[in-house]
Amino acid sequence: MIILGIDPGIAIMGYGVISYKGNRFEVLDYGAITTDSKTPTPQRLKIIYDELTTIIEKYDPEAVVIEELFFNTNVKTALLVGHARGVAVLAGANNNKSIYEYTPLQVKQGVVGYGRAEKNQVQQMIKMILNLDKVPKPDDVADALAVAVCHAHSGNLQDLFKVK
Amino acid sequence: MIILGIDPGIAIMGYGVISYKGNRFEVLDYGAITTDSKTPTPQRLKIIYDELTTIIEKYDPEAVVIEELFFNTNVKTALLVGHARGVAVLAGANNNKSIYEYTPLQVKQGVVGYGRAEKNQVQQMIKMILNLDKVPKPDDVADALAVAVCHAHSGNLQDLFKVK
Repeated sequence: MIILGIDPGIAIMGYGVISYKGNRFEVLDYGAITTDSKTPTPQRLKIIYDELTTIIEKYDPEAVVIEELFFNTNVKTALLVGHARGVAVLAGANNNKSIYEYTPLQVKQGVVGYGRAEKNQVQQMIKMILNLDKVPKPDDVADALAVAVCHAHSGNLQDLFKVK
Repeated sequence: MIILGIDPGIAIMGYGVISYKGNRFEVLDYGAITTDSKTPTPQRLKIIYDELTTIIEKYDPEAVVIEELFFNTNVKTALLVGHARGVAVLAGANNNKSIYEYTPLQVKQGVVGYGRAEKNQVQQMIKMILNLDKVPKPDDVADALAVAVCHAHSGNLQDLFKVK
């Protein structure tokens, strides 16, 4: 099973493509789609959408897995990041992919085994599980790989896109 | 000039298509794209994106004009509505349209002439300017027509999509 994990953001959108077969992981690709805050929002959204579409077409993942976002404070930021997350979800939907969501708590639980794990523990676990030389940077990339691993580990295979 | 106005929302997205030539307005189309809260978010976003794309392809507007959103309270709502607004902006961008934004204050100013106008005043003005029998319902539709009229009236023709 090929899984595309996404850590959504407007300035930095992390992605990671992994293959999971018979309990073995292989990393196929990872990186960050970045957009400049000086670029008009429509164009930033188009860059994100186009790059994700290219990645989806290239790797044809069985699952597109997107971290859920929580904000405590800034409504304006939530609105803008919502734009970016929306086009990421749409890139999956427009390519007829199954789409899944996990909360940060679920990701920690799915990767490390308990929900109160530190970010550093998650990153070290990702490095180990995926047999990487070092923790991928920026954090958004490691987070994207983590949500993909979480999905592979998870029994919660509820498809958000398909109507029940 | 044909203008598509959009009042973004996830449950109800109002749209209005107007033609503006030599100071005369004509309404070409208006309505609301609605999605059910029981429908999975990816599918709701796809419905909005697909319906807006159909409207854009049909009327080939020179401008796609989208109201800016403000929230005082609910971060969770802002995030979700941000998803919907993001795919609306993307529908314009993916069809190579010029995209414009106006704040609610600018819309009131552009339609009624002053920024502290009541919603009812804006709606009555829209009905009159566009020569409609009655105020279109729901409010989201009237708001979409209002943002389109605002753009026609506005000297602020800054194209948000094109890089300066």
